[in-house]
Amino acid sequence: MNNKRVIIEGVKPQIDSGRFPIKRVIGEKVEVEADIFVDGHDALSATLLYRQATKGAQWREADMSPLVNDRWAASFPVTELGFYLYTIEAWVDHFKSWRRDFQKKLEAGLDISIDLLIGADLVEQASKRATGKNCEQLVEFCQFLRAPEDSRLKTQLALDEELAQLIFKYPDKSLATKYERELSVVVERQKARFSTWYELFPRSCGEGTEHGTFADCERQLPAIAAMGFDIVYFPPIHPIGKTKRKGRNNSIEAEPGDFGSPWAIGAKEGGHKAIHPDLGSLDDFKSLVNRAKELGLEVALDLAFQCSPDHPYVEEHPEWFRQRPDGTVQYAENPPKKYEDIYPFNFECENSAELWNELKSVIEYWIDQGVSTFRVDNPHTKPFAFWEWVIAELRGKNPNLIFLSEAFTRPKIMYRLGKLGFTQSYTYFAWRNTKWELTQYFTELTQTEVREFFRPNAWPNTPDILTEYLQTGGKPAFMIRLVLAATLTASYGIYGPAYELCLAEPREPGSEEYRDSEKYEIKDYDPESVLQFRELISVINRIRRDNPALQIDHTLRFHEIDNEQLICYSKADPVSKDLVIVVVNLDPHHTHAGWVELPLDQLGIPKDRPYQVHDLIADARYLWLGHRNYVEINPHIVPAHIFKVRRKVRTEHDFEYFL
Amino acid sequence: MNNKRVIIEGVKPQIDSGRFPIKRVIGEKVEVEADIFVDGHDALSATLLYRQATKGAQWREADMSPLVNDRWAASFPVTELGFYLYTIEAWVDHFKSWRRDFQKKLEAGLDISIDLLIGADLVEQASKRATGKNCEQLVEFCQFLRAPEDSRLKTQLALDEELAQLIFKYPDKSLATKYERELSVVVERQKARFSTWYELFPRSCGEGTEHGTFADCERQLPAIAAMGFDIVYFPPIHPIGKTKRKGRNNSIEAEPGDFGSPWAIGAKEGGHKAIHPDLGSLDDFKSLVNRAKELGLEVALDLAFQCSPDHPYVEEHPEWFRQRPDGTVQYAENPPKKYEDIYPFNFECENSAELWNELKSVIEYWIDQGVSTFRVDNPHTKPFAFWEWVIAELRGKNPNLIFLSEAFTRPKIMYRLGKLGFTQSYTYFAWRNTKWELTQYFTELTQTEVREFFRPNAWPNTPDILTEYLQTGGKPAFMIRLVLAATLTASYGIYGPAYELCLAEPREPGSEEYRDSEKYEIKDYDPESVLQFRELISVINRIRRDNPALQIDHTLRFHEIDNEQLICYSKADPVSKDLVIVVVNLDPHHTHAGWVELPLDQLGIPKDRPYQVHDLIADARYLWLGHRNYVEINPHIVPAHIFKVRRKVRTEHDFEYFL
Repeated sequence: MNNKRVIIEGVKPQIDSGRFPIKRVIGEKVEVEADIFVDGHDALSATLLYRQATKGAQWREADMSPLVNDRWAASFPVTELGFYLYTIEAWVDHFKSWRRDFQKKLEAGLDISIDLLIGADLVEQASKRATGKNCEQLVEFCQFLRAPEDSRLKTQLALDEELAQLIFKYPDKSLATKYERELSVVVERQKARFSTWYELFPRSCGEGTEHGTFADCERQLPAIAAMGFDIVYFPPIHPIGKTKRKGRNNSIEAEPGDFGSPWAIGAKEGGHKAIHPDLGSLDDFKSLVNRAKELGLEVALDLAFQCSPDHPYVEEHPEWFRQRPDGTVQYAENPPKKYEDIYPFNFECENSAELWNELKSVIEYWIDQGVSTFRVDNPHTKPFAFWEWVIAELRGKNPNLIFLSEAFTRPKIMYRLGKLGFTQSYTYFAWRNTKWELTQYFTELTQTEVREFFRPNAWPNTPDILTEYLQTGGKPAFMIRLVLAATLTASYGIYGPAYELCLAEPREPGSEEYRDSEKYEIKDYDPESVLQFRELISVINRIRRDNPALQIDHTLRFHEIDNEQLICYSKADPVSKDLVIVVVNLDPHHTHAGWVELPLDQLGIPKDRPYQVHDLIADARYLWLGHRNYVEINPHIVPAHIFKVRRKVRTEHDFEYFL
Repeated sequence: MNNKRVIIEGVKPQIDSGRFPIKRVIGEKVEVEADIFVDGHDALSATLLYRQATKGAQWREADMSPLVNDRWAASFPVTELGFYLYTIEAWVDHFKSWRRDFQKKLEAGLDISIDLLIGADLVEQASKRATGKNCEQLVEFCQFLRAPEDSRLKTQLALDEELAQLIFKYPDKSLATKYERELSVVVERQKARFSTWYELFPRSCGEGTEHGTFADCERQLPAIAAMGFDIVYFPPIHPIGKTKRKGRNNSIEAEPGDFGSPWAIGAKEGGHKAIHPDLGSLDDFKSLVNRAKELGLEVALDLAFQCSPDHPYVEEHPEWFRQRPDGTVQYAENPPKKYEDIYPFNFECENSAELWNELKSVIEYWIDQGVSTFRVDNPHTKPFAFWEWVIAELRGKNPNLIFLSEAFTRPKIMYRLGKLGFTQSYTYFAWRNTKWELTQYFTELTQTEVREFFRPNAWPNTPDILTEYLQTGGKPAFMIRLVLAATLTASYGIYGPAYELCLAEPREPGSEEYRDSEKYEIKDYDPESVLQFRELISVINRIRRDNPALQIDHTLRFHEIDNEQLICYSKADPVSKDLVIVVVNLDPHHTHAGWVELPLDQLGIPKDRPYQVHDLIADARYLWLGHRNYVEINPHIVPAHIFKVRRKVRTEHDFEYFL
């Protein structure tokens, strides 16, 4: 028989009954809510317990406050990388009940002489739990309450705030309920939440169509940094297989001189720990990483756990691959499609532990070379348990690691990868074009429990994805998708210089592949022709850096605007009060106008005086008043407004604008 | 390192991570869904495992089928009272993958000679798991597939349905994932879901204002049964305390001759196991129970676990009550209100185990007298753990028990009581009057996970609740609320004869208490004056009995109707295809008209031919066509339509209506 009367349920945030940690970055708060109640009319007290998950860390406490409808809340800050735990304890608080009822009786003018004695008993009990000076103080309070003196004075004493505080310090938790689970938070560095990615093929960085080197690539870094990116991500940099190598435009037969796809990893020169000889040496790579660091850039590598037929693993560990009855190795296939240049690992093999450890050692190798950010290719074709294990193992030693998960067509699988430990994930942004689609999707990502475990990273293009929208919309389409990606999600990336050049030609009609894709050949981009678009990118990325509101996802809110081709949303930073309102014309062809409707109360904008909206792209300022205001956007100039809201505040002298 | 590749998550239904069972009644199905997926492109198979929770019961299996978006589903029937368990097992199905890919390759005209050999290997592996004749059959299949003969024949064999079935019988579950929890279902009798309650004070059943007896009450039973009720519920039938007895209209001082409130339980004649001497003997009670049974009625008693100051427990077990410092016992209070005629139990007392057991023995005592249905007074003022324990203990021996939980102003607490074992619960129906309120509330009760643990029982009035709506709306208001209660929820009840008499006078303006409430005095109702309203009740209850749709809650759907005072909803029985559409005029004063909009597809009504809606109250038939149809309701005649939908079907001869 269980004498614990308090019930704690509906605790949030938690993912799958606490099976997975929620995600935060350093400096954020964890806001915890729960339904907490007890039978009858007794008052209760509740505390949020939290601590780092490291051994020996002490629980700390935060008092919980009641909201409405038996919901309670408290929060705690996360200030260290790694894991934290949190749970809740709650108990019937007889002194609190007594004090509440005593006050009501006083107000109603009832006789309170017996109640004073009951109160004295409760104070006495607390004194027995207290120590030192507090104990003495409580004993004294008790004596006063029991003394035969004037009850007006005793009444004052009974309700004394100091007494209440003292007793609250020594609660009777003998029948306290502790929530049945300890929940966990993984705390990552701030770049986990706010990052700006630029994807680049190092081999295209050379002169003309010569195979570029890391040294060539190094020379591109200042321009990338100047655009405001903070992560530069390379497709695989390893030796490329020759057997069954794919030719240009993914043709089955490579011509002599074709360089092959970097994702067909492994040749006689080595596998996942080796560098393609044409790119340079390990020292060249380290030099590149260091130069990037000087420029405020991190180098991200691609983890593509698959092998070309020439990969050394194939000979050294035939047991890691599926063998066919004819003695050949099973290549990748998705019938009727065959990918004979790729051998997938067989994760169901007998010695899978060896395989798992080898793959872990690949990541460790690159961590040792100074890399801490990885983009993971096709994570959904390797077991979930493998990723959960390898990320936990590596993060235990290096909590700075960032893993970006590639996306694919199955949302449940994308979410599972987020839950099990991936820092960020690609999204379906590339295929969400209409107002309705964007609103639905980004509301799901930012306003449901998904936001606790899934950090979206929006990419308008990748080497695999040239969307129909970009194919048909011209330069305005590229500008529109850039602004959307950069302002809808705190992390975004582009695959360049294809993006700045507004490359839009598909391999064939209906395809999302680039024509003459850089995946299979070396490109020679004209450095002059990217300059204009790069200026817009620089402006957008500077706006992102200057506005904390754009570095957060969970405050995203969509607003009404009476034109299907215009979308309006806002983001706010609760700490700095930074408020940004974005309006984008989704139609790359025509000018559109409409009336934006803002929920002024929710946004903290005064209803009764004008406010300035400062378009940070065009550096134009508009004076708005009330909840309905007019916008008109010509996509051929700039297809969006990014407004910083500047509220008028009363100062000593007069109204002034916040800057 | 975990080699199990299949993930099972998002399993529904389940309550609080499986902490509580879901509820079903005998004959229902449990429909289970889950997200099930695996890395890569392998096919998988999944099975729903279920069994009775009794020791030694064998797991049975139901194959799960994929829906969309990695969601899988299966169901199982519950045919016995008590508890069932269910969980899920899923595994990578290599033969299924192989067969799917083989088919695709065939269609694409690819070479399949190696694939045949791979298939043969899979068949051989299955043959090793198979036994007896099946094993031989599989070996034979394998030999065929490996034979050097014509591959057209082998291709046919490879895709042979019998082979697929055979292999499916012997899956390779060596790396199967079993869902981490076994979930449970409590299966109750059908009356748990569909019941019709009539509350009656036995002491008012006598001649004039004489104290009525069980024998008097017995004479009322045929009329109650004739109205179509199946449960007759009595307020407490125990001796009533004299100390601090409340007088008429809850006055603090009782006059001589006042009978007191039945909820002030206990006097020198006995406590919770005794019968008020003026009502009769235990034999009289048993006779009443038996007579009720003959009439198809069950007697429900009130469990009010509290004591009058004269209750024998007060002397026998002073430790079960809180003692005040002046030596008196703590009475119930909700400052500034005092209830000095009531002593609550102190569930935090030292020997609470004794108290729990004594209270259990009270229920057991009445079970032994033939009672299996209980209405529980103020369950929220006793510990949740007590109810969970006592209901589980009693139900273990007697799975027929029904416990109806009283309601109060805190929804989380009501839901918790449902979760922990109460069969049914009062609701906030009494205070939901507008279309918006009713739609919101009953959608929450029937279309969210609440429906898995909370069975609503709607009461338009109780001895404690005479709503403002009933006070001001005259007889039409009583008719309106009756129809709503009887058709919104499969279980409902009224407190009569106050209801049939349309008693509407409050104790004072603003109060929900009846004037001259039967709680404190004996009433003398004129049997003639109830007859007209009872006829309506009989009709409504007959409609409920005749229409399985009205015996279910989870198919409730609200439909558009373009008048705020008209509400329209439907209920359907998926087994019998019974479909009922209810339209109620919520305004007790004026006639209203409007256009009902029905989602014909969802309701299974053909779009292209007329259908009959048969108003079962007025026995009037209307021919409707399409999704918009007109209704007009005068509340002074009958304030509602209860339409049975009679679809036209083509028979051998011509169209005919379903009857």
